[in-house]
Formats: sequence, structure tokens, C-alpha cells
Amino acid sequence: MIIDIHGHTNAPPSLYAYKSGLLSSRGAHGKGNPGVTEEAMANLVKNHLANNLDKVGTDIQFLSPRPFQLMHSEKPERIVHWFVEANNDAIATSVKLAPDRYRGVAGLPQCAGVPITNTFEEIDRCVNDLGFVGLMINPDPYEGDGTPAPGMGDEYWYPLYEKMCQLDVPALIHSASCKDPWDTYSNYFIAVETRCIISMVTSGVFDKFPNLKIIVAHGGGAVPYQVGRYRAFFVRQFGDTDGFDIQLKKFYFDTVLYNQEALELLFKIVGSDRCMFGTENPGTGTHKDAKTGRMLDDIKPTIDAIAEISEQDRKNVFEDVARKVFTRFKG
Amino acid sequence: MIIDIHGHTNAPPSLYAYKSGLLSSRGAHGKGNPGVTEEAMANLVKNHLANNLDKVGTDIQFLSPRPFQLMHSEKPERIVHWFVEANNDAIATSVKLAPDRYRGVAGLPQCAGVPITNTFEEIDRCVNDLGFVGLMINPDPYEGDGTPAPGMGDEYWYPLYEKMCQLDVPALIHSASCKDPWDTYSNYFIAVETRCIISMVTSGVFDKFPNLKIIVAHGGGAVPYQVGRYRAFFVRQFGDTDGFDIQLKKFYFDTVLYNQEALELLFKIVGSDRCMFGTENPGTGTHKDAKTGRMLDDIKPTIDAIAEISEQDRKNVFEDVARKVFTRFKG
Repeated sequence: MIIDIHGHTNAPPSLYAYKSGLLSSRGAHGKGNPGVTEEAMANLVKNHLANNLDKVGTDIQFLSPRPFQLMHSEKPERIVHWFVEANNDAIATSVKLAPDRYRGVAGLPQCAGVPITNTFEEIDRCVNDLGFVGLMINPDPYEGDGTPAPGMGDEYWYPLYEKMCQLDVPALIHSASCKDPWDTYSNYFIAVETRCIISMVTSGVFDKFPNLKIIVAHGGGAVPYQVGRYRAFFVRQFGDTDGFDIQLKKFYFDTVLYNQEALELLFKIVGSDRCMFGTENPGTGTHKDAKTGRMLDDIKPTIDAIAEISEQDRKNVFEDVARKVFTRFKG
Repeated sequence: MIIDIHGHTNAPPSLYAYKSGLLSSRGAHGKGNPGVTEEAMANLVKNHLANNLDKVGTDIQFLSPRPFQLMHSEKPERIVHWFVEANNDAIATSVKLAPDRYRGVAGLPQCAGVPITNTFEEIDRCVNDLGFVGLMINPDPYEGDGTPAPGMGDEYWYPLYEKMCQLDVPALIHSASCKDPWDTYSNYFIAVETRCIISMVTSGVFDKFPNLKIIVAHGGGAVPYQVGRYRAFFVRQFGDTDGFDIQLKKFYFDTVLYNQEALELLFKIVGSDRCMFGTENPGTGTHKDAKTGRMLDDIKPTIDAIAEISEQDRKNVFEDVARKVFTRFKG
């Protein structure tokens, strides 16, 4: 079975019209209706299944909200909550329309500067009521506006980690938009995900929460490539020469890297038992690679082409690790 | 010949005592004296040559100021100028003491929020009077304080690029400190260098300055590993499937990566003709690797161990590319 743990929302234009209204009214018009009904989404889901799953041989895709849309840094808090809920509802509708092909990964209504416990009601709704199998965390709800967000190793996040362990749900680390006018959100993903790993490693958060399951999107940002720098940093901080690699292997990673050399590096540095197939399809990589004639986010053939890994490595990546980590996924 | 293009200042404690005084007085005590004399530095240089060059077989090292010390974000502007000048003087003293073993790469007295032309007097002094062979640019003189710095593709930087072309000097891109309390300066290097490449690629700055020579430190940040993401981004922006790689090969890269897998990836993605040996020795990587028993920044044996590259590739990395790019280096 091919499980793609990194896909995003199917949604009609009404979802984004809803967001547009919330941003303009700042909630003055009330909660409103994002229109993510089965009727509005039936064709979308049919086309998505045909073009983004069947065409590339994906059996099941885990859907989370499209991160760059999530507007965590906007105020007041209620418009962020309403929009995240609407995204999670759209995901629930997709799962309802194709229960054998999708599972939900909940967006969190994170707001800059407020306690993380404010997301718990939505976590409970998604996991307990809607049957979602995981969460998605944005390490920077300020979305690059220049305000430093607490590092992922900071106590700010502990109540969330405790809740994740209680519910036994993993979380995908994936930043959202970026308000720095000289950066791009896609580039910022990499910076924030890198920072997340380093903050968690240096704070020893996995000692406090040994059952915490964190999946770092986009192949772990810059960390697998820059691992030598972080090994050296770790020796300096903790005097332990193997320490960084031991810590790094407490994380999981997706395969949202669009070329073979990078995937080879990822598997060598962290091991296939920490990697899960992810494509972000459709998304950033949905463009044709002139060299192969395939879409860049058609990652399975790229992994299949890696000669150095075993059949068990491939099975780890395509299925086994996801089944082990997403314990609420039965299928 | 083994040329290490990425080394940093030798300096006695008096240089950093000088900085401490400038920060406390904010310049009220006048320019003062950093004490980077030949007498104060003779033993330092002797030990540095023995431990950091001879021991690892480096013939010549290019010295730039130690970036995380440079305090570009401090005010008033004159204390930044004075401290950068003192660093460049310390480098000039090293070169004078061991003219066969060192060359200077000038730190720029960059200040957040003022024109880049304010650095030109110091550039002229270093290149024309002191014989320095290159420059070092910090893409974020705000040092991560939350203020967005103009992207390296922005017109803000054009006068500097014009000057670099006139003088025919290359620049090492290397960020400095980071004031974000939840980040580290070392991590921020990677984020800023990545952002630099993307900003320059998307702005077409190499079309405007075809002779501009930019060396991105630390193996290009995250870009070689995340190249698939940037290829896709480029197709989306410009509709050109080979475009990103063509642009990427307009940059040069150093080898300040401390493990073999990452160096292999770098050479595969950008080619040995765009890479220069650099170690940052002594620096972040000056810690023993338990696996090899060598220091992590003893990078030459790591490159020698790569079976897939040719003798010419090795010669490119260790000598030829540096000679081609640093045209003011004769030796």
C-alpha cells in the first residue's frame, strides 16, 4: 500500500471567499458559511482522486489544511478559529466522500501570543468527533512578521505535547505563510522547520515526552544536509559526539523533496525507519520536470530509482512507518 | 596547492575588549585602540599556522572577520565602522606576519537602514591599500531583530555589485549574529544564505551584473538539498524547467559542510567548477568526530574519500576555482 502522509485540502472557491470575507469584516459579520458541502465538493474530490492519487499510484492520502492559507497571524482570534475549522470541515467532507482514499490531519487554530491550549477544543473535535489521525503544527504563528515565536522546545508548547501523547496522535511540523516581504512562504517553510528541529533537540523535549511523535515536513528543512554543522554544535553544547544523530532519529521526516540526490541523502542520514512517503501533491512540486517528463511531485518513481536502498527500506517509507506512527489509521 | 577560502580572524582578547568598550560607550570615548599589533599577534599567528593550517595540510587560508562578532545591527553607525576596521586591521596584520599563508577578505561596515555606499571607503582601504582579495557580505545587517532586510536581489545592493565588478573582487555571503532569542546565529547563517540565493535568482541580478562573483558560504545553506522545491518554484515563476539550475550555477559555493554525504550532494547539484575548498577552521566544526577521530572541519580527507569525483574535480575544489574567482590572489 502507498500511503502519502502529506497532502492538502480539496476545497471549492467558496472556502477562500469565506476567508476573504473574514479578513475584510474581521468577524463583524459573524461566523458565516464556507460552503464545503458534499454537493460542492463531489466533483473536486473525484478529480483529485483521478489526477493526484490514481495517476501516480497513491492508495491513500492524508489531508491537512493548505498551510500557506491558514492566516495564523491575523486578529481577532475568532476569525483564525473559524477559518481553520472550515478547512478541517472540508477535509472531513473529502474523507466522507472517499473513505478508503483519505484520512484527516487537523489544522490547529493557532494564534500568535495566546496559549496553545486555545487549540484544544478543535483538536478534540477533529480527533474524537471527525476521526482525524494526526495534527499539523505551525512553529511560527506570527508568520514571519518579525516577532520571535517561542522555539518548539519551549514550555509554551508543553500542554500540546502532553495532549498529543494522551491522544496518541502525531503532528506534522509545517509552517504557514510568511509576511517578510523579501522572503517567500515556501522558503520560510525550510527555515522554520530547521529551527524547530534544533530547538527541540537542544531543549531535550523528547526526554520529557518520550512518546511524542513529530514529523518534520519537506525532508527536515536544511538539517539532513547541514547535519555536520549540527553535530559540531551538539558536541560543543553537550560534549556528546553521537548525540545529535541520536536526537535526530527521534523525529520522523516526510519525503517532500523533489529530486533523487536529496532523497538519497535523507535516507542515509536518518534511516528509512524514520521516513514516510509524502508528496504535497498537488502543490509546489506540481510542475513538469523536463528531464523525466514526470511531475516533480511524482516522487514514488524517484524513490524506486534509488538503487542503494532495500525492499524493506521502500516498504518502510511507503507504508510501514506511517502505520506505526499514525496509530489511529486503520485501513 | 590547497587554498582554504573560508577562515576567520586571528585576534588577541584586546580586539573583543575593544568591542565591549564600544558597545558600552556607544562611541562616547572616541575611536580607541583595538591592539591588533604585530607584537600582540605574533604568537597567535604562529599557533594558528601550526594547528589550523599545517596540521591539516592547508597551504593558504583567506581570512575574513569572525561574522557572528560583527554587530552590524548596533548603533550608532560609527561603532560598527570602527569595529569592522579593527577586524580588517587584525587580518592585515596576520597577512603581514605570514604573507605566504594568508590573504585578506574584508568585512564590510554594514549598518542596518543606511545606504550600502557607506561601506565603500572601507572597501577601498582594504582592497587598494591593504591588498585584500575579496569581500564578505552580510545579507541581514538587522541580524534577525525582526526588521526585514532588503533581499539580495533588491536595488539596495546594486551600488555594491557595481563596485565589486569595477574592482573585480568576489564576495563571500555569510550572515552575522542573530538576535532572535529562539534561534542561533549558526542556524540563521543557513536561513539567510538560502534566502540570498532565492532573492538573487528571482530578481535576475546576474543579468544586470554578469561579472558579479558571489560565493555562498556553508555549501549554499539549504538550497542544494532543497533544489527540487526551488526548481518547481522557478518553473511556476518563469515557466522555465532548466532555469533554476542555470541560475544556481552562476553562484559559487564553499565546502563548509562537515560530512561526506552532504559534500557529495553539493558536487552533484552544482558541479565542482562552482565549488571552493573552505573549512571555517577554527570555528563551528572544530570538534572531534568520534567516528573518524578527526576534527569535523578537517574537510580535505572527507573530500578525498569521495570516490565519484575525478582528480580534476578535486583540483577545481582545492585550487583552480579559487584562483579563477579571486583574481587579485597571486601566489
